[in-house]
Amino acid sequence: MRALVCDGGVRVAEVPMPRPAEGEALVRVLSAGVCNTDLELLRGYMDFKGVLGHEFVGLVEQCSNPHLMGKRVVGEINCVCHACQYCRMELPRHCLNRSVLGILNRQGVFAEYVALPEENLHLVPNSIRDDVAVFAEPTAAAFRILEQVAVTGTDRIIVLGDGKLGQLVAQVLSLHSKQVVCVGKHPWKLDLLRKLNIATALAADPIEGGADIVVEATGSYGGLTRALELVRPEGVVILKTTAAHPTALELSMPVVNEVRIIGSRCGPFRPALEALALGNVEVRPMISETYTLAEGPHALERAASKDVMKVVLHV
Amino acid sequence: MRALVCDGGVRVAEVPMPRPAEGEALVRVLSAGVCNTDLELLRGYMDFKGVLGHEFVGLVEQCSNPHLMGKRVVGEINCVCHACQYCRMELPRHCLNRSVLGILNRQGVFAEYVALPEENLHLVPNSIRDDVAVFAEPTAAAFRILEQVAVTGTDRIIVLGDGKLGQLVAQVLSLHSKQVVCVGKHPWKLDLLRKLNIATALAADPIEGGADIVVEATGSYGGLTRALELVRPEGVVILKTTAAHPTALELSMPVVNEVRIIGSRCGPFRPALEALALGNVEVRPMISETYTLAEGPHALERAASKDVMKVVLHV
Repeated sequence: MRALVCDGGVRVAEVPMPRPAEGEALVRVLSAGVCNTDLELLRGYMDFKGVLGHEFVGLVEQCSNPHLMGKRVVGEINCVCHACQYCRMELPRHCLNRSVLGILNRQGVFAEYVALPEENLHLVPNSIRDDVAVFAEPTAAAFRILEQVAVTGTDRIIVLGDGKLGQLVAQVLSLHSKQVVCVGKHPWKLDLLRKLNIATALAADPIEGGADIVVEATGSYGGLTRALELVRPEGVVILKTTAAHPTALELSMPVVNEVRIIGSRCGPFRPALEALALGNVEVRPMISETYTLAEGPHALERAASKDVMKVVLHV
Repeated sequence: MRALVCDGGVRVAEVPMPRPAEGEALVRVLSAGVCNTDLELLRGYMDFKGVLGHEFVGLVEQCSNPHLMGKRVVGEINCVCHACQYCRMELPRHCLNRSVLGILNRQGVFAEYVALPEENLHLVPNSIRDDVAVFAEPTAAAFRILEQVAVTGTDRIIVLGDGKLGQLVAQVLSLHSKQVVCVGKHPWKLDLLRKLNIATALAADPIEGGADIVVEATGSYGGLTRALELVRPEGVVILKTTAAHPTALELSMPVVNEVRIIGSRCGPFRPALEALALGNVEVRPMISETYTLAEGPHALERAASKDVMKVVLHV
């Protein structure tokens, strides 16, 4: 089958078909989304080699569960052992023996087919289009925040970063608080949120601090320090950026202000799919460009451009 | 009156008597403890100039509250306005207009007298000696952790740092969990904990990671990275060190492992005094040397030595 392979550079290559292990399904990929993590992997993050990609929608072509067979699905990216200490503690996303789709020890979804444990798959309601369904995984990552911190209607929330994840986070948190501001550097990206009645500010403008919650989703090294400046004492900073290089941090700031800094990664698919199905999270305006799998190398190049938000691959 | 003054260097000087404001008591200082923060202040932290010191026990000599008059007291160090947004949110220790005893806009306790709001004072039970009572403030800082994170009997806890605060934290957390290990660089300091049946390890030795809670109380810049290595996914790192310079941090570690990093500062005096009165926290073995106020400059020099733990000043 054809796939987009990362091995120093990135290229379209003919690779063997995935062979589903016990308990796994074979899924024919319909569409896939390019995530900033894919671009980080290309720059060397995690030392990943192989088929890239972890955001997808596809059709189940082989599987032992009749309820999944032939159905359109999205899939969680952490494939776990159910036996290690963290699986036994019910922290499966932190399984010591996990593979992670297109990120760690498992071939990704920029390919004609992918194998994934059946337990990772979620049926996609008919009302969700393919190019919307590929947002299930990053939308779940935004919903993760609601599992980690109680958000009330009066919480003042600042989201740093107007990229894809920042926008999803701002939309999801706006379902729970009326006081969300997304701060970014790109007026045209912030416009997308303003059309959804979400307040925005330019990073260069003065921003009122003392926020109850600040979400750091800038993807850049200075984001955490800015977050610590904007959060109130005993407030929460949610850290989404996985920068591959060390960042400098003034430790006395979070100690004196007794801030809680919470790392946040993958989240629950069910509320994400509900929000996409009901239109509570609006993702189509974020899709900048669409390519075929054969155009993959160019698509990844475009995804790294400042003019582009989501790039979707149709397989 | 005589006092130990920080103004670039440190010297014994004749300074004006404090004049208690409305609601404040005048306290004659009996004994005071030297904290690492005093040494940081001498190195320029907070740009503090004036009378140093914030750990003390004293006798109330002037005050409007008859229940305090003539009594032996210790005192909380944050003096607050009761009017700002954080006071109204019941976060008085983060008062925007606060002064902090011997640290920020308020003369400290390395002096014959100190003025402090009556509401900051706590009566000291007769069973607590003066040189034990000066530990009330740092012991309260250790108890702060129990307000910030739920500790259960089966939690595996690593305390990084065998200094004064690390030892108090290890003792306080040992009241709640049987699985506390204090990690330090000084065998003679760790010996003090072993005599209290608290497990210890040398920092250079291999230490089993995956701890539920890691408390970073090393006072040094590398402590946080080590804490992040030792904590389990979704575990908690309590950050006590207020290093005055930026430290380098690999952000992807806490994000991928979804660690909670919680800054922690001052704490509740009541459980601290109870623990000192009942002997649940044992502080006298930590007292290395005792000096008079006139010997203050030498005492501070000694407090910075690796051979010394607590230095107590008798005024």
